[in-house]
Amino acid sequence: MKFNVLTLFPEMFTPMTTSILGRAANRGLLEFNFVNIRDYSRDPHNRADDYSFGGGPGMVMMAEPIFGAMEAVDAGTKKVIYMSPRGKIISREILESLAEELELVILCGHYEGVDQRVLDYWNAEELSIGDYIVTGGELPAMVLMDSLSRLIPGVLASEEGAMGESVYSGLMEYPQYTRPRSFRGLEVPEILLSGDHRKIDLWRFEEALRLTAERRPELFEDFVKKHGELPKDEQKVMEKVLGML
Amino acid sequence: MKFNVLTLFPEMFTPMTTSILGRAANRGLLEFNFVNIRDYSRDPHNRADDYSFGGGPGMVMMAEPIFGAMEAVDAGTKKVIYMSPRGKIISREILESLAEELELVILCGHYEGVDQRVLDYWNAEELSIGDYIVTGGELPAMVLMDSLSRLIPGVLASEEGAMGESVYSGLMEYPQYTRPRSFRGLEVPEILLSGDHRKIDLWRFEEALRLTAERRPELFEDFVKKHGELPKDEQKVMEKVLGML
Repeated sequence: MKFNVLTLFPEMFTPMTTSILGRAANRGLLEFNFVNIRDYSRDPHNRADDYSFGGGPGMVMMAEPIFGAMEAVDAGTKKVIYMSPRGKIISREILESLAEELELVILCGHYEGVDQRVLDYWNAEELSIGDYIVTGGELPAMVLMDSLSRLIPGVLASEEGAMGESVYSGLMEYPQYTRPRSFRGLEVPEILLSGDHRKIDLWRFEEALRLTAERRPELFEDFVKKHGELPKDEQKVMEKVLGML
Repeated sequence: MKFNVLTLFPEMFTPMTTSILGRAANRGLLEFNFVNIRDYSRDPHNRADDYSFGGGPGMVMMAEPIFGAMEAVDAGTKKVIYMSPRGKIISREILESLAEELELVILCGHYEGVDQRVLDYWNAEELSIGDYIVTGGELPAMVLMDSLSRLIPGVLASEEGAMGESVYSGLMEYPQYTRPRSFRGLEVPEILLSGDHRKIDLWRFEEALRLTAERRPELFEDFVKKHGELPKDEQKVMEKVLGML
């Protein structure tokens, strides 16, 4: 998948070159094209923002430089996304649908946002990462690209896939432990050392249910509704957790 | 506010040195201390992860290097946060409460997460940026620090504050326009050029209501409930929007 990112701050995107995403780019699975909107300003000082018509505090990103950047990436033939607190909050469903695109154009706003004519003309879908405000669209764009990349076949080594599955399956992740068994008097739960994989699975299921019920009761309810008939042992665990609530 | 960030990838945090956050750090309002967890590994290859007790795919971050990093920042006397999809999703309320701390310790996980004994011992509060999975805790930590910094007095110039206010007030932001009035045949709405500030305010209020009702009906409902008695003109606008639904 190719990401065309339109931004005033291309230097912010170093996190995209490290870790799993950088590896995936090196292997040709992902391609990043960072476009500096300021390069398309016709202003002698490369200005890209101006005051808001109708008044009010803050600056608005001007249409012209963004139109230039859009044309440079041939955005008319591609899906265009604008990161914005006004947008739909990304979810598994939205990510899965975006993962089918070969190429995306992601516009990062700053200040009071961009001239509305940009969004109307380029038919931009507004997406948000959550109900809080950050300084610009760059971090949200990186969050979107990261979470999306994980759905692209080959980006994750198979053994890395499980964490992704867990939340998307509707339950919080169970607690994890690694060596040493005893660290400063803190012990690993006995059952994880038992070698009895069936018991371990049930223990983990119980922990995941419990955490979800405690922390996100609405997700727990959804899970209970969706899984009417569990296998016998799992059903017992579920009843135990329901009994604790 | 001082942010102590415990991470395997300190080089990912360049976005924190640009834009408004970098400026705030230069002015002494924010301080960043990035601690490489690997520096506290006693393994000859600086390994910081190992297999999960009980089996399963993926690696778990070991307790010992994280304990070393926690001790290096004196985490026992500070609020400790672990970025995790299991956590509470950050909201205005959570951010406002965190903004009262003088110092935070933010632990970034990778792979299948960290050994649970770390979270138990250091009494870590788990926080999430949303119901989607990213590669590690670094981008979420940056989103947290960015959204939090905006609540710290002096970080935002006063004219930059408005965007923050808008979503937190419960309505989506109205459309913005800037120069030129006409761009490739696309016009700015007449009313914004009228100079009648009362009319402009009401138009913006209507647009904000409409966008919120369309895109986030649950936020719109909350807004209606919270604002029983609006001033007369605003009430008319509200009734118009309610009539459109």
